[in-house]
Amino acid sequence: MLHVKTPEEVLALIEQEFDITAQTELVPLGQAIGRCLAEDIAATEYVPDFNRSTVDGYALRARDTFGCSDAIPAMLTLRGEVFMGEGAEFRLEPEQCAAVPTGGAIPEGADSVVMVEYSEDYGDGTIGISKPTAPGQNMIFRGDDVCPGKVILRRGRVLSSQDIGALAAIGRVEVPVRKRLTVGVISTGDELVPPEAVPGPGQVRDVNSPMLEAMLTCFGVNVINYGIVIDNEALLSEKVHKAVAECDAVLLSGGSSVGVKDAACRIIESMGSLLLHGIAIKPGKPTILGKAGRKPLVGLPGHPVAAYFITRLFVLPLLSRLLGRQQESYTTTAKITESVSANHGRAQYHCCRLERRDGTLYAHPIRGKSGLITTLAGADGYFCIDRDCEGLPKYAEIQVTISQGD
Amino acid sequence: MLHVKTPEEVLALIEQEFDITAQTELVPLGQAIGRCLAEDIAATEYVPDFNRSTVDGYALRARDTFGCSDAIPAMLTLRGEVFMGEGAEFRLEPEQCAAVPTGGAIPEGADSVVMVEYSEDYGDGTIGISKPTAPGQNMIFRGDDVCPGKVILRRGRVLSSQDIGALAAIGRVEVPVRKRLTVGVISTGDELVPPEAVPGPGQVRDVNSPMLEAMLTCFGVNVINYGIVIDNEALLSEKVHKAVAECDAVLLSGGSSVGVKDAACRIIESMGSLLLHGIAIKPGKPTILGKAGRKPLVGLPGHPVAAYFITRLFVLPLLSRLLGRQQESYTTTAKITESVSANHGRAQYHCCRLERRDGTLYAHPIRGKSGLITTLAGADGYFCIDRDCEGLPKYAEIQVTISQGD
Repeated sequence: MLHVKTPEEVLALIEQEFDITAQTELVPLGQAIGRCLAEDIAATEYVPDFNRSTVDGYALRARDTFGCSDAIPAMLTLRGEVFMGEGAEFRLEPEQCAAVPTGGAIPEGADSVVMVEYSEDYGDGTIGISKPTAPGQNMIFRGDDVCPGKVILRRGRVLSSQDIGALAAIGRVEVPVRKRLTVGVISTGDELVPPEAVPGPGQVRDVNSPMLEAMLTCFGVNVINYGIVIDNEALLSEKVHKAVAECDAVLLSGGSSVGVKDAACRIIESMGSLLLHGIAIKPGKPTILGKAGRKPLVGLPGHPVAAYFITRLFVLPLLSRLLGRQQESYTTTAKITESVSANHGRAQYHCCRLERRDGTLYAHPIRGKSGLITTLAGADGYFCIDRDCEGLPKYAEIQVTISQGD
Repeated sequence: MLHVKTPEEVLALIEQEFDITAQTELVPLGQAIGRCLAEDIAATEYVPDFNRSTVDGYALRARDTFGCSDAIPAMLTLRGEVFMGEGAEFRLEPEQCAAVPTGGAIPEGADSVVMVEYSEDYGDGTIGISKPTAPGQNMIFRGDDVCPGKVILRRGRVLSSQDIGALAAIGRVEVPVRKRLTVGVISTGDELVPPEAVPGPGQVRDVNSPMLEAMLTCFGVNVINYGIVIDNEALLSEKVHKAVAECDAVLLSGGSSVGVKDAACRIIESMGSLLLHGIAIKPGKPTILGKAGRKPLVGLPGHPVAAYFITRLFVLPLLSRLLGRQQESYTTTAKITESVSANHGRAQYHCCRLERRDGTLYAHPIRGKSGLITTLAGADGYFCIDRDCEGLPKYAEIQVTISQGD
């Protein structure tokens, strides 16, 4: 008999029992946003590849400006002009300068740039400089941004738009990322009808498959929806075998009855091993985790709120494990608008709406009987009441994980 | 001459000058995740549509159990069994009970359910109940979740997976959302080559277009990339006219030189009006905002870091305005690992990496000369130093906006 495990134990179990199974593929830079990087990325060139001005002005040798002022400008010979997107075809000798635009190349021999505001063009090939400058001023040196060999992004990172910019800068237009996982979703229950159907007596619409499909899509995996299976062990077993053959992970959702849970356990055991039966959280206790070969099989609770939390808290980390994906989850601080009682021995999760008033963020817990979908609709995030917590008084500070838009 | 505006003034200007222009379309529920809801959504049915048990047990009249105990069970007649997904075809009379599964329909006449653990089946059609129950126990009433007319989601909301579940529950399989905006991106600059090219002397790769395309794609808009235009006012004007005709908003990126900025201003003025020239933030001051009809045109700074912040802080809110999209941005609290100096008079934005150590979150500011792309790569978020701030000491608490994965 498997014991009910704490959330920490479940995450440790996932770490221990599963490993990276996702293959690597190359995708064009334009499709790499949000993907999980499969290798460290090192630069192979200098960026920029030339000394570059950061202002419109005159490139020169700093020492030629030492001591100059408005009253006694340094008089330099204009050696030439550098145009945007072109190299500087000449070398500056002492007492010479060259006009350079912002972003333009700085000629050899120059070590500084003076802004055009501190210059005067006498029109006879002489430029007066009225402000001394130091070497390195108003310029970026070759390789200031990156040098060959420098690792700019680590594998496991979920690529952001900033990272895409960095990859563009070093010319990495094909990016090695983890192949998308394919996850199968099977709903079970004699009472379920698809969302487009009108429920008959005793029937309800299948909420979990569309919700899970949306969550998983947001997370970046391909979803195969195997539809609703009635409460029949042979049919369920057949569907699970098909899904395991076609997918990298399989989620069984629903089946609130004891019979379906037991059937799911037997099917998982027959295909590999059962790793977990029950997590000490509320809602979500009746959760099953097993594996067939290296592929995880998860039996989710039937109640939508419970299925939601188990997927968020354990299934997404499990999929991250298969991808080698490193992504932290961050929280925001808010004040709770109602006291909330604790549930000793089990970590307790609540959805909440957030509201900013006079600069303070308030969290309104969304109440409702477990399994009611309106406790999900309109939520901006969720918070946890620790299993050792005595409950929270009104206006206590809590840490909210944001879920808006995903 | 337009004054340099504070960030708050710019956001107010956006609110005042622009309005919802996005049309409404119906999309299937499976494609609605992340989209902006165009109308309030009200339920048209009861959910659930029948009284429903939350446990496996016996439906009965609570009053028939009052006073019962292990020693003196209440003896009830088993009227029948309710099966999952079927209605209860009979009505319970006093002193009767019916077997119901979790999620099953409760027969008329019953007002409570006793868990199977507190019952004994004597096998002769009699069930003994050993624990008193109160009306409403272990059941959900018809409409407990939603009643017809109840608004469950408000327009402007960005739909989350939880919302998708709620929409499935009420049978809304076609969802009214705002049509995706189309945003045009034009890069300007004689020094730019596409990311796949090897830069020649004085050339650099175009970083902004791929970065902006990734950000905008993540935000949920369609992007048309108009490529790189050289520094020529007639060519630029032609491209901007084409983009304005084809898109809902146009971003001009780059053009670090004064000439390109001036050309962009003249083009915008000739097409409508210039609303803004300069924002008091660092990096990002040289930002232009105008409109042609109801369509915004934005001239972004050429430096990638500046272009990044201006897009995050002003362009995405501007696009939200066109969509009527309501989405708050939340921050997480971290301790800064280095002191950072202030820039009086201008709000100053810094990218940072986050690291959790012994339960505390630390923010490492990413240093670098403005415009260097490696100050973006690997960032997990960013923070702001207020324009009135004297600078931040080491280990000061800061509010970090998370940018990972988008």
